[in-house]
Amino acid sequence: MQGKLRAMEIATPGHVNRLAARTQRLRASTIREILKVTQQPDVISFAGGLPAPELFPRKDLAEAAARILADPVDGSNSLQYSVTEGHPPLRAWVAKRLHEVWGVEVAPDDVLVTGGSQQGLDLIGKVFLNPGDTVVLENPSYLGTIQAWDAYEAEYLTVETDALGMVPEALERTLRTTSVPPKLVYLVPNFGNPTGVTLAQERREAIVRICERYDVPLVEDDPYGELRYEGRHLTPLIAYPSAGTIIYLGTNSKICAPGLRVAWMVCRDGAVRERIVPAKQAADLHTNTFCQFLFTEYAKDGATFAAHVESIRDCYRQRRNAMSEALHAFMPSDVRFNEPGGGLFFWATVERPNIDTEALLHEVAEKQRVAFVPGRAFFPHHDVKNAMRLNFSNMPPERIREGVERLAQGLRAYPA
Amino acid sequence: MQGKLRAMEIATPGHVNRLAARTQRLRASTIREILKVTQQPDVISFAGGLPAPELFPRKDLAEAAARILADPVDGSNSLQYSVTEGHPPLRAWVAKRLHEVWGVEVAPDDVLVTGGSQQGLDLIGKVFLNPGDTVVLENPSYLGTIQAWDAYEAEYLTVETDALGMVPEALERTLRTTSVPPKLVYLVPNFGNPTGVTLAQERREAIVRICERYDVPLVEDDPYGELRYEGRHLTPLIAYPSAGTIIYLGTNSKICAPGLRVAWMVCRDGAVRERIVPAKQAADLHTNTFCQFLFTEYAKDGATFAAHVESIRDCYRQRRNAMSEALHAFMPSDVRFNEPGGGLFFWATVERPNIDTEALLHEVAEKQRVAFVPGRAFFPHHDVKNAMRLNFSNMPPERIREGVERLAQGLRAYPA
Repeated sequence: MQGKLRAMEIATPGHVNRLAARTQRLRASTIREILKVTQQPDVISFAGGLPAPELFPRKDLAEAAARILADPVDGSNSLQYSVTEGHPPLRAWVAKRLHEVWGVEVAPDDVLVTGGSQQGLDLIGKVFLNPGDTVVLENPSYLGTIQAWDAYEAEYLTVETDALGMVPEALERTLRTTSVPPKLVYLVPNFGNPTGVTLAQERREAIVRICERYDVPLVEDDPYGELRYEGRHLTPLIAYPSAGTIIYLGTNSKICAPGLRVAWMVCRDGAVRERIVPAKQAADLHTNTFCQFLFTEYAKDGATFAAHVESIRDCYRQRRNAMSEALHAFMPSDVRFNEPGGGLFFWATVERPNIDTEALLHEVAEKQRVAFVPGRAFFPHHDVKNAMRLNFSNMPPERIREGVERLAQGLRAYPA
Repeated sequence: MQGKLRAMEIATPGHVNRLAARTQRLRASTIREILKVTQQPDVISFAGGLPAPELFPRKDLAEAAARILADPVDGSNSLQYSVTEGHPPLRAWVAKRLHEVWGVEVAPDDVLVTGGSQQGLDLIGKVFLNPGDTVVLENPSYLGTIQAWDAYEAEYLTVETDALGMVPEALERTLRTTSVPPKLVYLVPNFGNPTGVTLAQERREAIVRICERYDVPLVEDDPYGELRYEGRHLTPLIAYPSAGTIIYLGTNSKICAPGLRVAWMVCRDGAVRERIVPAKQAADLHTNTFCQFLFTEYAKDGATFAAHVESIRDCYRQRRNAMSEALHAFMPSDVRFNEPGGGLFFWATVERPNIDTEALLHEVAEKQRVAFVPGRAFFPHHDVKNAMRLNFSNMPPERIREGVERLAQGLRAYPA
């Protein structure tokens, strides 16, 4: 890794620092190529992670925008500079919702508004990480987190992750045996990206206690928790009283509209918040005021909001079912896949000796006109080549079925 | 500086890195205290840099929002994830306006949208600066830039700045004699913050040529350029063809609504843009889509937009005049101040041996109920104590007059 990085430094203009070169590496190798393929209109793309745009509450948001801008005080305040911590009524809404839906007790002051959860990850990196610091991740883990913390030259320790999520014993072993204590433990507890795996209820408090014992802050990134298609919510890690630091990341992106870029970071540790706020101020002063007002005005009608979230669940449940049925119907017998109980993704692995899903993507995008995200980029050490992430939220069931059939054809045609 | 920094590191929790500690230092010492004072309702505050909220085009923005959200395609796209580079019609609008108003020739692809200019500064820091790198600044310089680049542990070289802006000969001397080449030269060419000074026309090409010759990228931060209250626009630095790299920062904040957090970075150097884009992606994926659509929809009617900008100029010109008249009428004879031809600020210095404007602020805020920003924070080396920044955009002329009279009283009462 270091050798590669140095080589790239030499290739870049002298003005640009090594962090940028490292970020560039990931970008070039994954996102752009995927976008190039999936933008062709006849390609069925399972590559994105986009919400279904037909579910955006356009009419209700239009009414909320009109109400805000018709009011002299709200109208002016929604267009003005505002405080770095976030719009106070939105912070109060987040605290209330965390209590009502998740049983979490936090104060509005514990909530900081961010420009998407991605900014939350970036600010955590900025405040916690010096070059060479280590972070504990699931394996595989969310690509956006790796990109955010690559910029701070983090090194990654991966912990065994199975169908029930991160393995507590493996986490404890890692924390006990590592020579330098990691700066953070990061995980996605519900319907993870890319794997769709949910951390089992019985592992949750264990992980909180291990992080507490080893005094390592825990980052709980929960963009998909509300998108549960069966069963009951499990306990968020931040719901467990702990002497350790837990930072919870939530977002409006999957329950309203990602284009608003309104998300939240929740942390009871005032010393951490005291350092996040100036980092946020230096990064962009504050999250855009208008969309904070807009989301708050829209979401304050609890019945409308609850019905909207339920309609998203209903739609995505059907699409999840359609993808599951198609995978069972069409996939060759050497393809394994999970049955996610929520979220946006299936995760499939191909049990074939020479499979390389990046090469497979090039084949099927060209011949079968179907796309997915090769799994390799989600592994911090880029060492797994037989996996793929399949999104089901962004197209109707019949197109999902057609796409899975095409992908299965491509897999059959791919040299064994 | 290093000693102080280390001392603070010890005082902060072990998890938090030294960058955060350094950012914290600035924050605590300036912004919070100012806010605390100025939020009291009977205080007349010249401390902010806020646009006049009564000028926000609330009605036109409401109509634009309604049009966007009523359209099935625009409505959905304005609420969805979008590309990191920015909304293409907004990038095209920026290129067109730079040509029409400023005579600058750039392509839409040269434009990247940022979450306020503050994010542009942060991304430049992220891409260009390693700890200990030096940056050349005017003296004094914009506080937000110092905050942004403190987070990357920049060191600052200041160059002599007079009533005509940065002195080219002083810049050349600095670049010729410094042992390690600086990574950036940064300046605000028009109606600078805090001083209100404008870089003279005859110095502009000279500064471009010096940066070109020494191969140092030049950052031209121009939030106030459109707010010119008399005379004609001077040539932007980016208008001069140059073999060097010039990054121009512009924003909607002063000509429409800062709460939208829509700004732009313009750079013809593709190698720089190629590194800014992944840094932006890691920082927040993209600037909020809805406000990009909203500003573009509002600003596309050229006549309406031109009339709006003209109405801002008319209003602020009156306020600038009111402050100038009051300063002449009330200030003691040992107070010097400039006559800014645009922008938002007067800059006053007190020619009195023991003056400390931070102490003065505490006095006048309590006794005369008036506030300003002490000049010290704008000096990268915090070595000037006799200056103050006075904002005139955020209140009507009669209140400006009253506030200046109060401030003059406080100055007379302040021990010589």
